[in-house]
Amino acid sequence: MARDPARQTEKRDAKANAAEKAVYELAGEIEKDIVEALAEGDFGRVKDFVGSLHYADAADLLERLSPEERHLLVEVIRADFDPEILSELDDAVRDGIIEQLGIEEAAAAVAELDSDDAVQIIEELDEDEQKQLLEAIPAGDRTLIEASLAYPEDSAGRLMQRELVAVPTYWTVGETIDFMRRSAERADDAMPDIFYDIFVVDPTHKPVGSIPLSRLLRTTRPVPVTDILESEMKLIPAVMDQEEVAFLFRRRDLVSAPVVDDGGRLVGAITVDDVVDVIDEEHEEDIMRLGGVSEDDLYDAAVKTTRSRFSWLLVNLCTAILASVVIGYFEGTIDQIVALAILMPIVASMGGNAGTQTMTVAVRALAMKELTPTNAMRVIGKELLVGGINGVLFALLTGAVAWFWFGDAIIGLVIALAMIINLVVAGLAGTTIPLMLERSGIDPAVASSVLLTAITDIVGFAAFLGLAAWIIL
Amino acid sequence: MARDPARQTEKRDAKANAAEKAVYELAGEIEKDIVEALAEGDFGRVKDFVGSLHYADAADLLERLSPEERHLLVEVIRADFDPEILSELDDAVRDGIIEQLGIEEAAAAVAELDSDDAVQIIEELDEDEQKQLLEAIPAGDRTLIEASLAYPEDSAGRLMQRELVAVPTYWTVGETIDFMRRSAERADDAMPDIFYDIFVVDPTHKPVGSIPLSRLLRTTRPVPVTDILESEMKLIPAVMDQEEVAFLFRRRDLVSAPVVDDGGRLVGAITVDDVVDVIDEEHEEDIMRLGGVSEDDLYDAAVKTTRSRFSWLLVNLCTAILASVVIGYFEGTIDQIVALAILMPIVASMGGNAGTQTMTVAVRALAMKELTPTNAMRVIGKELLVGGINGVLFALLTGAVAWFWFGDAIIGLVIALAMIINLVVAGLAGTTIPLMLERSGIDPAVASSVLLTAITDIVGFAAFLGLAAWIIL
Repeated sequence: MARDPARQTEKRDAKANAAEKAVYELAGEIEKDIVEALAEGDFGRVKDFVGSLHYADAADLLERLSPEERHLLVEVIRADFDPEILSELDDAVRDGIIEQLGIEEAAAAVAELDSDDAVQIIEELDEDEQKQLLEAIPAGDRTLIEASLAYPEDSAGRLMQRELVAVPTYWTVGETIDFMRRSAERADDAMPDIFYDIFVVDPTHKPVGSIPLSRLLRTTRPVPVTDILESEMKLIPAVMDQEEVAFLFRRRDLVSAPVVDDGGRLVGAITVDDVVDVIDEEHEEDIMRLGGVSEDDLYDAAVKTTRSRFSWLLVNLCTAILASVVIGYFEGTIDQIVALAILMPIVASMGGNAGTQTMTVAVRALAMKELTPTNAMRVIGKELLVGGINGVLFALLTGAVAWFWFGDAIIGLVIALAMIINLVVAGLAGTTIPLMLERSGIDPAVASSVLLTAITDIVGFAAFLGLAAWIIL
Repeated sequence: MARDPARQTEKRDAKANAAEKAVYELAGEIEKDIVEALAEGDFGRVKDFVGSLHYADAADLLERLSPEERHLLVEVIRADFDPEILSELDDAVRDGIIEQLGIEEAAAAVAELDSDDAVQIIEELDEDEQKQLLEAIPAGDRTLIEASLAYPEDSAGRLMQRELVAVPTYWTVGETIDFMRRSAERADDAMPDIFYDIFVVDPTHKPVGSIPLSRLLRTTRPVPVTDILESEMKLIPAVMDQEEVAFLFRRRDLVSAPVVDDGGRLVGAITVDDVVDVIDEEHEEDIMRLGGVSEDDLYDAAVKTTRSRFSWLLVNLCTAILASVVIGYFEGTIDQIVALAILMPIVASMGGNAGTQTMTVAVRALAMKELTPTNAMRVIGKELLVGGINGVLFALLTGAVAWFWFGDAIIGLVIALAMIINLVVAGLAGTTIPLMLERSGIDPAVASSVLLTAITDIVGFAAFLGLAAWIIL
């Protein structure tokens, strides 16, 4: 019997595809297999599976498991727990695992990491745990970590790696390469495993310039390093906020940059992989704050999540009551024309949505430093115009619907006028609120949406009911 | 008279600070100076100023100017226009400038860029302009650019750089370094200016492994490249979506990765700076879509912005009318108890906000691949619990307020019950809507919030008014 080669190829392709998928993200099947083996108590298979995973995938797996499964899995892989897994975990999950491992084991794991990753883990612990963990780390590593921890939270000093390559100004390319090769052969090699630039420093250890490795490699040995260095490199003060660092990396397409202390001396280097994490963090903060959540709480316990969301909802309850007070002011009007009660949410809702559109663009533009005092007036003017045009369009639409629905042209007119007013107000509030918050030093993402909907609700109800009272009654 | 040294230091510090600030972002003063010089017609000074700026800052400046000022500035710097500026501009602004420069000049500028930057500019043009521009580009560059453009939009093929360093498996470290040095001396050097990894390929040009430059530099000359290569490198198919590429870079802390064609042959390399742009783009998309905006339209003309925002508002008008229809169903009830009309927006508003909190976390978790089929049920369960707890808390609060306000315990009871129902529904809808959209292949960020508020509005009004009709009447 002839075999069907097409069929065979297909099968092989499917297998190749599955394998390829597994390369880029943790495949569902692998996850299922591990959970199954865990449930069956086949710990040998679990160990083999997890051992074959990249540490980022192993961290992902741990996050997705239920707390009970996670606890069990950690016990199973405890003996050969890859320290790198810790640096990839979500805070809530990592806390639990560090507790489970105990101080001694956790400290041993942290000590194996690069200084920047170690700092990133330790800074999230509470003070007591920090102290205990640091005490359990060997003195040499501890000093490096403590020096970084001395810099403010979210600063370049916390982000930087202490391990870097610095050479004096009087060296040649050849001497630099020989130095690096010799260091690689030594047991106490203090150079990072992967780096992208080397730094040239003067006798006081102040950076004079940087040299991308690709340039170093393509230059002949006798050339002095000073001939090929990039003197226009950006120095990052160790106290600089990490958001500024991210802005700089993004703006200048950097992969690494030197960090200097108060005296301008080279103390570390920041690499782009850490900056990508900062960018993600920043994004998360923006999107969460706009949605009224303090942080991504996917892995937090229900009680903690409830508590963190409560305060935002409480603020919203107050503004909602305020809007109701405005409605209450027109109790008599509604009592006479109940159609007003039916229609009034439309005006408020449209204002809220139009305002949210404008506000979203403004908050994002502020975060990306695109909206500045120079163009603020122009942007506000444009948003007023957009609000006006859309206001007129939706006034016609909504007015027609209301007229048709209640057979009353005056009600149509009232809702049309209220719509124009509220959409123009929405455009104005959507730009000015974030701008004013930014100017007062408050993150516009935190408070913009609550203020905005308070205004569009109140103006929406007041304009609609007020106009009705005035025109109809 | 003694000079005041403290005063002097302060002054010097202020100057140093200003200079330092200018390094990281375009300082307001420089911007002002340029605008002033432009208005005064002092074009020599304008040229000097702009010439001293980094191209990213020059692009920033152009974006912030009014359309008239921008036009004038482009004329002034036209003779020595830095092509790199084009790749840093917002689409709307770039379009205008390319039109102003004309096809010939624009093509000459684009031809000077790396292939990935050129592709990024050309792909945004409309078909006619694309054709004209491509025709004006020298044949060699054109072929490279057209090959990239043949890959789908937002694919790895569009993102990659064609320039890269690939060496055969039988070379040593020394041969590799010599090859790179020789190439650097040739006029037709086809290697990129900056790169981070070299790739080792077999005779069919399939990548066998990658070598980080730092490792190459630290290895002695006689070592074969196959001894130090990273064989577990991630191959990126040229058709892979850029979001997947970003996920991979982020997950594995990559700075560059090889791109392969259908046949597995090396065709280009993607570097992290382009991936950072993708991450920013992705985030912008998420945040804009959640806010009901199709894209960041800060630099678009008012008419274009109005049009793009109209459709979203139209959808919202429909759902708002639907909610009003629900209210209309209880016209009789409101007619008897006008207090209901006053209080009803509170229930709807709280549901909308609680649902938005949950939805924001869910949409972000889906985007970051943290929310998966494995943990979906657990997350939904948790959100129901959170909704229930907050529902009870806010039921007590709101019930008390309503009771006190209208002196009627029954109204307090009705609003309390409606609040619990709506917050639980909000928790359920906030998780299930994004999950269902994702499963149907729709970006959850696009449609989640409109569906969510439709549900929380309708349930909020229906529960409150329905309970009132049932309990009170």
